[in-house]
Amino acid sequence: MDFKKIIKDVFKDVNSIEEQGALASYIPELANVNSKKFGVHISTLSGINFGLGDFQEKFSIQSISKVLSLCLAYQMLSGEVWDRVGVEPSGNPFNSLTQLEKDRGIPRNPFINAGALVIADILLSNLDDPKKDLLNFIRSLSGNQDVNYSTSISSSEKSIGYRNVALCNFIKCFGNIENEPDKVLDFYFDLCSIELSCKDLSALFLFLANNGKTMHDNRQILLPSKTKRINALMQTCGFYDESGEFAFKVGLPGKSGVGGGIIAIHPGQYAIAVWSPQLNPKGNSYKGMKFLEGFTTLSELSIF
Amino acid sequence: MDFKKIIKDVFKDVNSIEEQGALASYIPELANVNSKKFGVHISTLSGINFGLGDFQEKFSIQSISKVLSLCLAYQMLSGEVWDRVGVEPSGNPFNSLTQLEKDRGIPRNPFINAGALVIADILLSNLDDPKKDLLNFIRSLSGNQDVNYSTSISSSEKSIGYRNVALCNFIKCFGNIENEPDKVLDFYFDLCSIELSCKDLSALFLFLANNGKTMHDNRQILLPSKTKRINALMQTCGFYDESGEFAFKVGLPGKSGVGGGIIAIHPGQYAIAVWSPQLNPKGNSYKGMKFLEGFTTLSELSIF
Amino acid sequence: MDFKKIIKDVFKDVNSIEEQGALASYIPELANVNSKKFGVHISTLSGINFGLGDFQEKFSIQSISKVLSLCLAYQMLSGEVWDRVGVEPSGNPFNSLTQLEKDRGIPRNPFINAGALVIADILLSNLDDPKKDLLNFIRSLSGNQDVNYSTSISSSEKSIGYRNVALCNFIKCFGNIENEPDKVLDFYFDLCSIELSCKDLSALFLFLANNGKTMHDNRQILLPSKTKRINALMQTCGFYDESGEFAFKVGLPGKSGVGGGIIAIHPGQYAIAVWSPQLNPKGNSYKGMKFLEGFTTLSELSIF
Amino acid sequence: MDFKKIIKDVFKDVNSIEEQGALASYIPELANVNSKKFGVHISTLSGINFGLGDFQEKFSIQSISKVLSLCLAYQMLSGEVWDRVGVEPSGNPFNSLTQLEKDRGIPRNPFINAGALVIADILLSNLDDPKKDLLNFIRSLSGNQDVNYSTSISSSEKSIGYRNVALCNFIKCFGNIENEPDKVLDFYFDLCSIELSCKDLSALFLFLANNGKTMHDNRQILLPSKTKRINALMQTCGFYDESGEFAFKVGLPGKSGVGGGIIAIHPGQYAIAVWSPQLNPKGNSYKGMKFLEGFTTLSELSIF
Repeated sequence: MDFKKIIKDVFKDVNSIEEQGALASYIPELANVNSKKFGVHISTLSGINFGLGDFQEKFSIQSISKVLSLCLAYQMLSGEVWDRVGVEPSGNPFNSLTQLEKDRGIPRNPFINAGALVIADILLSNLDDPKKDLLNFIRSLSGNQDVNYSTSISSSEKSIGYRNVALCNFIKCFGNIENEPDKVLDFYFDLCSIELSCKDLSALFLFLANNGKTMHDNRQILLPSKTKRINALMQTCGFYDESGEFAFKVGLPGKSGVGGGIIAIHPGQYAIAVWSPQLNPKGNSYKGMKFLEGFTTLSELSIF
Repeated sequence: MDFKKIIKDVFKDVNSIEEQGALASYIPELANVNSKKFGVHISTLSGINFGLGDFQEKFSIQSISKVLSLCLAYQMLSGEVWDRVGVEPSGNPFNSLTQLEKDRGIPRNPFINAGALVIADILLSNLDDPKKDLLNFIRSLSGNQDVNYSTSISSSEKSIGYRNVALCNFIKCFGNIENEPDKVLDFYFDLCSIELSCKDLSALFLFLANNGKTMHDNRQILLPSKTKRINALMQTCGFYDESGEFAFKVGLPGKSGVGGGIIAIHPGQYAIAVWSPQLNPKGNSYKGMKFLEGFTTLSELSIF
Repeated sequence: MDFKKIIKDVFKDVNSIEEQGALASYIPELANVNSKKFGVHISTLSGINFGLGDFQEKFSIQSISKVLSLCLAYQMLSGEVWDRVGVEPSGNPFNSLTQLEKDRGIPRNPFINAGALVIADILLSNLDDPKKDLLNFIRSLSGNQDVNYSTSISSSEKSIGYRNVALCNFIKCFGNIENEPDKVLDFYFDLCSIELSCKDLSALFLFLANNGKTMHDNRQILLPSKTKRINALMQTCGFYDESGEFAFKVGLPGKSGVGGGIIAIHPGQYAIAVWSPQLNPKGNSYKGMKFLEGFTTLSELSIF
Repeated sequence: MDFKKIIKDVFKDVNSIEEQGALASYIPELANVNSKKFGVHISTLSGINFGLGDFQEKFSIQSISKVLSLCLAYQMLSGEVWDRVGVEPSGNPFNSLTQLEKDRGIPRNPFINAGALVIADILLSNLDDPKKDLLNFIRSLSGNQDVNYSTSISSSEKSIGYRNVALCNFIKCFGNIENEPDKVLDFYFDLCSIELSCKDLSALFLFLANNGKTMHDNRQILLPSKTKRINALMQTCGFYDESGEFAFKVGLPGKSGVGGGIIAIHPGQYAIAVWSPQLNPKGNSYKGMKFLEGFTTLSELSIF
């Protein structure tokens, strides 16, 4: 399989299509990003590392970090995690409170905001220095020490994140948040503020294609059975209310963020990251989705 | 991979666990089935055909037939199908009208009852003799001529299927049913009444593991790209409100029916059918789910 | 209180305002009505009978008849009625299935379609000749023999009433309809098809302003305590999703129909009927609401 | 009408019925109240003032204060209030977020918590010293200077009021709260903490039975037309998800609080207050509802 050629071809195609979608506008830091940015990077188990476009430029990974915080919580607590958060697609926009009301404070899955808040709460209760420990965990995944929170992003979100404040307090009133909502929200906004490039991302997520083992130092981050479950969750719940569409068109487990990034995993093969900041109406990168659809179609590789 | 040994081991384990769950009770024909029945059958691309327990006994496949009617509609109409039915998990019980109300008559996916009614309507509008043509299509998939509707099942459902009558008329009032609801319902109840054994089922669904091509006569039923999409749909939407759980625990695309049957596909490898009539609270076979979870765990094979 | 003068003044004012709203369009018989029609008629306990405009022309009273069928059921069964239908405002459009799903087939109140279907079912189970008996009941209220069903209206509704078919079958599947849905729907469509003039209506509903006693022959149709409850129900539930607005602006118990008619009751004083076929977005007569608001403002009479 | 005798009879009857319901438990201050407390007081326009039982003991009026804050906002802003909050019954429990999500941050009415938060926000934006000004307004209604906030109640609510924090932030994210949520919540918790006796309450609310004019100093607090509207709102929305039931059984506009108090108004006649802390499942005083039902039945006086 000539990944490089396929990536080049699809990149060129998608790059030439008309700009569509809109930048995430709810905080200035995301609205001010250059909307023409477009980058892609693949890391394969066979050792290929290849990128095109703006693949070395850092961007706000936003919800993509929810996979990483979940991996850390799952590593520490195993199945207990699922007592407090479900594994079902939500069938609702990513920040819906309706579902939460019906399910008495148990979020449908760990990738909607409500679920990620519960995971943040779990980490707060189980880590000595949550902010630092999470960063160390992420750095250890690919040996990349250049991973950091963005203070400007997180403080910007903190100042206007009323909906997340609502979510967190709502879950708290059902008893499914242990710590004070303000502390949970602080940590949550921090973890959403992490900035990485496509190159960083694909290297960092490669362990999920490798049965849970890192490539650079061969450590078992998650057991194979747990790794499969994380991938399954990304498949069914990784794209807000568009998860079915992504499975349908792309056919890979993955996770998107409102910063315009997407990570996708082909178990046993590779991790691939795309970034293009303009979002479709469901909040996923317009070009990112297009690129990955083209990529799995041309490579005739998907898990299905 | 010694599929036979793994199947034997898991079958023995699951067979010995306490009976749990309840028979589908809404029509006498399903409630009267012997609840101890338990069968499994695998058909692999490598030519293995192996079954245990009651794998040769026919049972009512119910919603499993929704995959087959969808395949026929998709073969005939291609992408047009998705103008009338979505590809997203519903996040709601399988017969919910709430979602339908919000989405103005567009069912979330073709595997909830609402979606299957729309697919039935599409077939009615596009086939000369829908009942006969669908049967011929199904028979052609594995060359098995012994596939039939069950009049007792379908007439039983027709006499008490008030909720489906409600669903169909509700969709009609939004304009997403072309034919008269009574005709659509008749055809729908017929297609749910098909009876097959585990052995029949795994043979019949094997083309979905084979890039859309039949094994017995090498015909391309669906293009590979369409086949992948059917598999993706089964992954995200095949188990009502438990699709995430099935992806999470079993890690294969599949489809269940309230008759207690489950079909699962490992693309490029095999199709496997299980039958045990007692259902868990979400309407999926209790032992069937257990068996498949054990099977993919021991075989260390899943798509993730 | 010079009712006649106030009615004349408000009638003139409202008649001069620009046409707004739209005719009920779902059946041709309603869509073809002359949209400029406007009539009003009052009947007081003190013996005043006064009308203006098209007050002698019959129109389709539609949902207004739901009050009459309820009165008959309540007369026959007393409190048992409330085991099968609630007394709470729905907070949802008049034909919503969502609420019904949540409440397991118990409609929120007898004036939404779902509730009126249950009342129709009750009458079917308790009357010898439901269609004839209901007509006789209505005729007896004011001694007016000229009350009839409209075959053209009812057969028109029967041919396209998919949403009501959905509603009725949905309630049936929860067990809250005793008879076959087709029979219930038939009777329901008949009772919605009754045609009356404003003059007929105010005479007929006057017993609800008179503690449940008819004026023309002094018979106690409903006990005073039951009459108060019917009025209370009209106050809180009589105007679909606009009942609060009507209470707020008009301040009288009442009931509207999509034919553009409204009946309002001032207990101890009068019954007043208005008709103007153009409906506001919530399905109530645009001019009818305006007229009644003006009338209670100028007369400084409301129950509050 | 011998109000005193009727009150005595009904009070005796209701006092003798078995205790039912449960104390509001979410804050200790309410859970620790003596559940046997039972008091009633009437104030009529004809000058009768009569109480029985614990009618002179102060209790936490909780949501009853929402009528008072609304009156002040309506007095100041008139119709503008209704741009930000609806006048329709909610058809949902008193603290639902679902409705709010659907209606984009516009609460259904000013008596659900969401609506009262918006009214609190309006007062914050329009008063110089909101806490003091509101207290002065309430004191002026009956000339009673002994009206105060309870610091223990409000600080108790502030410490655990997660659901209200959620509600307020949720409305804020739709733009329908102008001030910072923390400030709005502070003021809201204060106004819910007011403590009054039945005697205080009936005197204070008597102006709503008197066309908006106080009895003690003859000042027009609200215009008659506005007063009618406040009464209409209490009728359709005053009892959470049980407003229809209250209209149906009692037939008077009124408002309840989770402290177990109820105020009811008979326009043109009287205001009556009841207090009994045990609540029915819908959050309204069990004995209070019983008493008022008996009272309007025996007095044969209701607005219907």
